[in-house]
Amino acid sequence: MHFTSETSSNGVIERNFTLDEITGVLWSPISGTNGSPLLLSGHSGGMHKKAPGLVASALISVTTNGFTVAAIDAPGHGDRPRNLQDQRWAEAIHQVRAAGQSIVPIVVDYTMSLAERAVPEWQATLDALQALPEIGTESPIGYGGVSLGVVTGLMLTAVEPRIAAVSFGGVFVDDALIEAAGRLTVPVEYRIPWDDEDFDRTSGIALFDAFASKEKTLHAYSGRHYPVPEYERDSSARFFARHLG
Amino acid sequence: MHFTSETSSNGVIERNFTLDEITGVLWSPISGTNGSPLLLSGHSGGMHKKAPGLVASALISVTTNGFTVAAIDAPGHGDRPRNLQDQRWAEAIHQVRAAGQSIVPIVVDYTMSLAERAVPEWQATLDALQALPEIGTESPIGYGGVSLGVVTGLMLTAVEPRIAAVSFGGVFVDDALIEAAGRLTVPVEYRIPWDDEDFDRTSGIALFDAFASKEKTLHAYSGRHYPVPEYERDSSARFFARHLG
Repeated sequence: MHFTSETSSNGVIERNFTLDEITGVLWSPISGTNGSPLLLSGHSGGMHKKAPGLVASALISVTTNGFTVAAIDAPGHGDRPRNLQDQRWAEAIHQVRAAGQSIVPIVVDYTMSLAERAVPEWQATLDALQALPEIGTESPIGYGGVSLGVVTGLMLTAVEPRIAAVSFGGVFVDDALIEAAGRLTVPVEYRIPWDDEDFDRTSGIALFDAFASKEKTLHAYSGRHYPVPEYERDSSARFFARHLG
Repeated sequence: MHFTSETSSNGVIERNFTLDEITGVLWSPISGTNGSPLLLSGHSGGMHKKAPGLVASALISVTTNGFTVAAIDAPGHGDRPRNLQDQRWAEAIHQVRAAGQSIVPIVVDYTMSLAERAVPEWQATLDALQALPEIGTESPIGYGGVSLGVVTGLMLTAVEPRIAAVSFGGVFVDDALIEAAGRLTVPVEYRIPWDDEDFDRTSGIALFDAFASKEKTLHAYSGRHYPVPEYERDSSARFFARHLG
């Protein structure tokens, strides 16, 4: 893990890093992070590690809870080159949308492929972060994400015992995701938009039902996928403070 | 409105009151209440104005948010005599439960009857509270409740423009309730237990869908109707702080 830049403002240190092909960012409180929780944050499809909503949530977690927050670009996103297959998927999404047809089947396939590649990248990132003296192996770890970030997080948490709590936003649900949810036993907070024609409420509720976690909460909010209401960002920060703090 | 007792502890003044046949209680911060929000709190069927969960939530609202909280006994509950018809309903519930049959149809009828009688009582209480100099007519007003308290609150809010925000817990849903929900336009936070054999998730979700409110949030939590998780009580207090504070 190589830090490529470091800036600070409003009590938060922002460090960009690279780890082999992975590009990422780490936010931490200027006041120190010794043993404080680590939050992994997954961006949505088409966005990147510094998506505005992700940054807003990260800064709340750092300044309010004293957490360290890490985000990495998904394959082909942000500062990372997009391979030929991913380019074809992205173009197909544009064409299907322009033709007025449902993008869901392509998005589900594309998302699942990205998530499968992102899981080992997150595990490598986690190894590298735990090797940093200011984080170490004792800090409790949570994962938060939106859409692509949810799929990645569910796949990751299903195989990664280091993650102790997860908070998610809306996502396209398929059988593989339901199956991954059934392997999760850590506390889950899951939010879905109630009035989004691109989002199927029923499958969102089925995903919530599938989590094997003893403590799980579904938040359905009026409105569309974006923007996530500010009170839901606050709720997510409190969820993590409760389970990791 | 006659205050019949006044005690104080931990920064909270508790005053019992009567208003004609109504028996009630008012909690307010010792530090003063001038213009601060007023929260009406509806207890569940079989409980009373000082049900433990209700008191716990009320004390959070008073000490954390500086609110005044009012609760009244439903007809035939707490300090109020039960009439013959209500006695028959209560006995029928015991008999049906002992016979291993579903109590839901009787509970729905009984609850609706109680709620219809409680609505004008809440309105009279509200008039009397607004006549108190420490509350007045400018304080923003919210309503929170559980089960019977939900039905009462939905019926009340559908006809009572003074109520600006409502936060509810699980309830048995029937057509009259769905109809009342369709007349609500104020912000709503509605929570349902996900793992309670006495509670039908589908009708709970249908009730959430029926609210005409621009801002509405459904919280489904793992577990049964009781106890309501502490983090949901906190969420309710924050909901009111956001909309009334």
